[in-house]
Amino acid sequence: MEQMENLAYYNGRITSIEDMMIPANDRGFYFGDGIYEVAMVFNHRIFALEDHLERMANSAAMVQIGLPMAREEIGRLLSELALKVESPCQFLYWQITRATAPRNHLFPSQVPSNLYVYSKPWKGVEMSDEYRLISVDDTRFLHCNIKTLNLLPNVMAAQKAREAGCSEAVFVRDGYVTEGSHSNISIIKDGVFITHPLDNLILPGTERKHMLAYCKELGIPTKERAFTLEELAEADEIIVSSTSHPSMRAMELDKKAVGMKNPELVEKLRKKYMDEIEAL
Amino acid sequence: MEQMENLAYYNGRITSIEDMMIPANDRGFYFGDGIYEVAMVFNHRIFALEDHLERMANSAAMVQIGLPMAREEIGRLLSELALKVESPCQFLYWQITRATAPRNHLFPSQVPSNLYVYSKPWKGVEMSDEYRLISVDDTRFLHCNIKTLNLLPNVMAAQKAREAGCSEAVFVRDGYVTEGSHSNISIIKDGVFITHPLDNLILPGTERKHMLAYCKELGIPTKERAFTLEELAEADEIIVSSTSHPSMRAMELDKKAVGMKNPELVEKLRKKYMDEIEAL
Repeated sequence: MEQMENLAYYNGRITSIEDMMIPANDRGFYFGDGIYEVAMVFNHRIFALEDHLERMANSAAMVQIGLPMAREEIGRLLSELALKVESPCQFLYWQITRATAPRNHLFPSQVPSNLYVYSKPWKGVEMSDEYRLISVDDTRFLHCNIKTLNLLPNVMAAQKAREAGCSEAVFVRDGYVTEGSHSNISIIKDGVFITHPLDNLILPGTERKHMLAYCKELGIPTKERAFTLEELAEADEIIVSSTSHPSMRAMELDKKAVGMKNPELVEKLRKKYMDEIEAL
Repeated sequence: MEQMENLAYYNGRITSIEDMMIPANDRGFYFGDGIYEVAMVFNHRIFALEDHLERMANSAAMVQIGLPMAREEIGRLLSELALKVESPCQFLYWQITRATAPRNHLFPSQVPSNLYVYSKPWKGVEMSDEYRLISVDDTRFLHCNIKTLNLLPNVMAAQKAREAGCSEAVFVRDGYVTEGSHSNISIIKDGVFITHPLDNLILPGTERKHMLAYCKELGIPTKERAFTLEELAEADEIIVSSTSHPSMRAMELDKKAVGMKNPELVEKLRKKYMDEIEAL
């Protein structure tokens, strides 16, 4: 089979990512009217595919976007596309937009949704003990549980973090930490793993979910509750997790040293993740 | 000059709207990372062009998107494009997205922004005395003063209105009316024109601005203050305004009869608008 360095797919058409063109009438382009997922590919196999397909279906349902094909079919297609890219380790992205139609806030009727996919080589598992964080006001909408393409506030926060020499921005709403601009934020305090509960203020992160399962297997107590910015500053460990960066430790928050006080527990969680990849 | 039925422009390329293709790597497509404007074209001339160019520049600055060319140049280009469409009366849309680049929350450096424009025939000035409204929770972000492409909550609200047999959804935050899903909402009570103040909860609508100016010219007192859903229900008149639908009167709110008690004042405002078009 002929493989590609990277690959983009749009409604059946395949090109390189750089060459892919889509209609300007795709509602993703002018309304951000769609949802998306990111998954890691190791050894040409998609990690946590079922988790991602489930969240994709949930996101789509919450904004009344119909899937362009059955969920299982999307899973099969993604798996096939991951085989077409040379690198065994890939960053796989896909999004579903409501329709291609003349611009109108109202849903067009009888128009199928669009599936855009791309996959590109990835450097492998990224873990770091050197994250610097800044806190920013969480002024986003109240639908952060839906993985939508309306990401401008996240983009602005991520950029603000970079301009402050930081790796991630931590959203704070009414004094409580919600999540990062493209990650979930969890803490370890006195041996307990604490993370924001699943509600409309955070994305139900797949790594968040996996870490909770690892804790259960390891006998580490967990609490799903909101914690304050002060608690974040005083935590033994701060873990910044996302699909592409599953387990990053923060050493600095708003220019002050934080966390880094329970490396053994972090190591146990990381080992569980690596074991899961091995078993893929 | 050869004219087209409708026209799309993207970074110098011109096609029909339906045929326009844009790169999947345009940040508008996967982040909604852009801002937009809509203007009306009458007799091939753009109505309130300066207002729209000013708001465009403000929106772009607030999200740190550089204009792809000088503001005046964009104005000239839009005016030229409006001449290329057959219909003298047009709906003119343009958006500026941050860049075309591989997906990454962080701003790419040294990449120019993208200008997408389309113009299509429009039926002319639309005014109606028959709007039905429904109220919906305003769960949007706190940047509604920026005219961004992150419009999914607006799309959902507009669709909810249609499914309830209504023309527009009225966003209500903490008991106060903010604006419509794609309009500003103003009321007339005891001869006073009342409209939400300019802040981060509403779009600075060009028709809102023009109506305030008309009131001044007509000696109608105005108040820029937030009003409650109850005040909306008890108003003498409810005016729903947007660029494409400058002066719509509401007759129903949440299935109850409302407004329609000061037709003379509405008529005066509408006449001012028509006079302004005449003078274009």
